[in-house]
Amino acid sequence: MKFSPLVDELIQSLRCLPGVGPKSAQRMAFQLLERDRKSGLQLADALDKAMKDVGHCQSCRTFTEESLCPICGSAKRGHADTICVVETPADVLAIEAGGHYSGRYFVLLGHLSPLDGIGPEELGLALLEQHLAGGEINELILATNPTVEGDATAHFIADIAHRYQVSVSRIAHGVPVGGELEYVDSTTLALSFNGRLPL
Amino acid sequence: MKFSPLVDELIQSLRCLPGVGPKSAQRMAFQLLERDRKSGLQLADALDKAMKDVGHCQSCRTFTEESLCPICGSAKRGHADTICVVETPADVLAIEAGGHYSGRYFVLLGHLSPLDGIGPEELGLALLEQHLAGGEINELILATNPTVEGDATAHFIADIAHRYQVSVSRIAHGVPVGGELEYVDSTTLALSFNGRLPL
Ligand SMILES: [Zn+2]
Ligand SMILES: [Zn+2]
Repeated sequence: MKFSPLVDELIQSLRCLPGVGPKSAQRMAFQLLERDRKSGLQLADALDKAMKDVGHCQSCRTFTEESLCPICGSAKRGHADTICVVETPADVLAIEAGGHYSGRYFVLLGHLSPLDGIGPEELGLALLEQHLAGGEINELILATNPTVEGDATAHFIADIAHRYQVSVSRIAHGVPVGGELEYVDSTTLALSFNGRLPL
Repeated sequence: MKFSPLVDELIQSLRCLPGVGPKSAQRMAFQLLERDRKSGLQLADALDKAMKDVGHCQSCRTFTEESLCPICGSAKRGHADTICVVETPADVLAIEAGGHYSGRYFVLLGHLSPLDGIGPEELGLALLEQHLAGGEINELILATNPTVEGDATAHFIADIAHRYQVSVSRIAHGVPVGGELEYVDSTTLALSFNGRLPL
């Protein structure tokens, strides 16, 4: 025991948060105890509710406490004929912030990673296949990350889509607009050459 | 609303933790929801208990859910004739880790900072004065940080101790053992010159 049991337990528990080591857990605990007990109680309550009640959207797998997330539940987009496949709910947010896409999403909550025991089942691909088999979907846009695992996942899903004669595309990767060529990493640069378009 | 209400609330609540911005709050929320709901619930419980039940030691002001902390409550140290004054409970831990000090502590939970509204009352100096007035204390060791505020706080407390004829000392600041002179900042170097001892 370093401090009193309840303080020790709080410091220890804070370490479940990604990126929080012993020193920052201590700092967090003391800050809440000294200056912000109300926020600490609010966080306790938010954690408790979220851990108990948040499940997955029955259509796209994103996190929601309802059976359908706001997008899948909307009259306008819930039956769109395009599905964009992303790895995380944060990716949905990034694409929505752009405001250019009006189809549905499918959130894998990860990527294929056999060494970590993450296969097609963990990514909910049976549910995605149901959507493809249903005949409502015309196009599948693969927006997994441009990493080895993201690429492998994209190819795996493309193969499924081909079986259902659904057209598949992958979002373009390359030099970002406003980015300076010399500061772009070599993998991105290679992708931007491979994806070059005729002018 | 970005995600569903409960997920949004969790992300927002996590931002009360020091050093946690919007992106890391999102990452924390998703990690707990995806992979570690049990730890999330434990954290909720630890937060709830600590925020509600942890108070201050009646003798030294450190955080504890009991009336006295383990040190103040111990038969051996609870009535020691030396008090070491520190700014935070983490300082107590650092000194205890050294294992050389066997007296009591007094935890200010801050330092004098008039601009932030932190005066003698906020630092519990009336309680410290009670200890000094009680006649049990022979020496007060001031281990506040070697900063402008820490120094001002030390001098303020030294004046109180002098009134009660209690001897006061300040821990030495200087080049750390194993530290290389050329990498030590100039303030520390100045302190190590001021505190030089005859050989
Ligand atoms: Zn959905
Ligand atoms: Zn105590």
